[in-house]
Amino acid sequence: MEIYSDEYFMNEAFKQAQLAFEEGEIPVGAVVVCNNRIIARAYNQTEKLTDVTAHAEVLAITAASNYLGAKYLKECKLYVTLEPCVMCAGAMYWAQLGEIFFGAEDPVRGFSRLETNLLHPKTKIHRGLMADQSNRLILDFFKELRK
Amino acid sequence: MEIYSDEYFMNEAFKQAQLAFEEGEIPVGAVVVCNNRIIARAYNQTEKLTDVTAHAEVLAITAASNYLGAKYLKECKLYVTLEPCVMCAGAMYWAQLGEIFFGAEDPVRGFSRLETNLLHPKTKIHRGLMADQSNRLILDFFKELRK
Repeated sequence: MEIYSDEYFMNEAFKQAQLAFEEGEIPVGAVVVCNNRIIARAYNQTEKLTDVTAHAEVLAITAASNYLGAKYLKECKLYVTLEPCVMCAGAMYWAQLGEIFFGAEDPVRGFSRLETNLLHPKTKIHRGLMADQSNRLILDFFKELRK
Repeated sequence: MEIYSDEYFMNEAFKQAQLAFEEGEIPVGAVVVCNNRIIARAYNQTEKLTDVTAHAEVLAITAASNYLGAKYLKECKLYVTLEPCVMCAGAMYWAQLGEIFFGAEDPVRGFSRLETNLLHPKTKIHRGLMADQSNRLILDFFKELRK
């Protein structure tokens, strides 16, 4: 079996973010990986679904649990293009994700601006993977929006 | 139009919690009220849906937004039998709820154990409404579970 890199998976998350962009959603994408295989893909759909809870990470966690038939995702890695917000970090806590990788930091709504670690103590965090690319997509989105 | 009290609405949330209890779910229930009318009812369904994100509050917010066709719930009040967790507080932040009422405190996972206010600055918080009744239901649930 071919072993994919973290960059490969983050790039797949990035493709999801681009789909969000094309649909006029704030461009954030996520994938969940288990045993070197993508088991869930999702992008932000808060506008389309008229639902503030429809962030990429929440949708990806729901889809991954549905695929596995299991509530906990201890053996899984979640790749998301933007630093998760408090709601998504709370969802990741409950899912007990093995590892999370995120791209661009979110200094305003990102979970890590809080002093308390909101994630599960066993969850490993990796920051800044393909951050520039993700940042650029978000900046482009808001530039378009202002036009 | 008859004006209902906060106790009335919390009792409706409590009925939702009892439904959760009967289905073997941690008994937490919620309702969303807009203009003195219940527009959404939900209870915890994490086991049934195999989804850690299926907390009563998240489901109630999604249902309320669906009903109103609006992402923001500024004019709404959410009643929930147990203090919301970090994930649910994060969802409430995004929904910009007008007011939230909760019953029993959750000293372990409740959002208010954190120093930062996770809710929207405009959201009014009311604590401890029918707390004893809600606490008792949760204690009964875990007593049953241990048998």
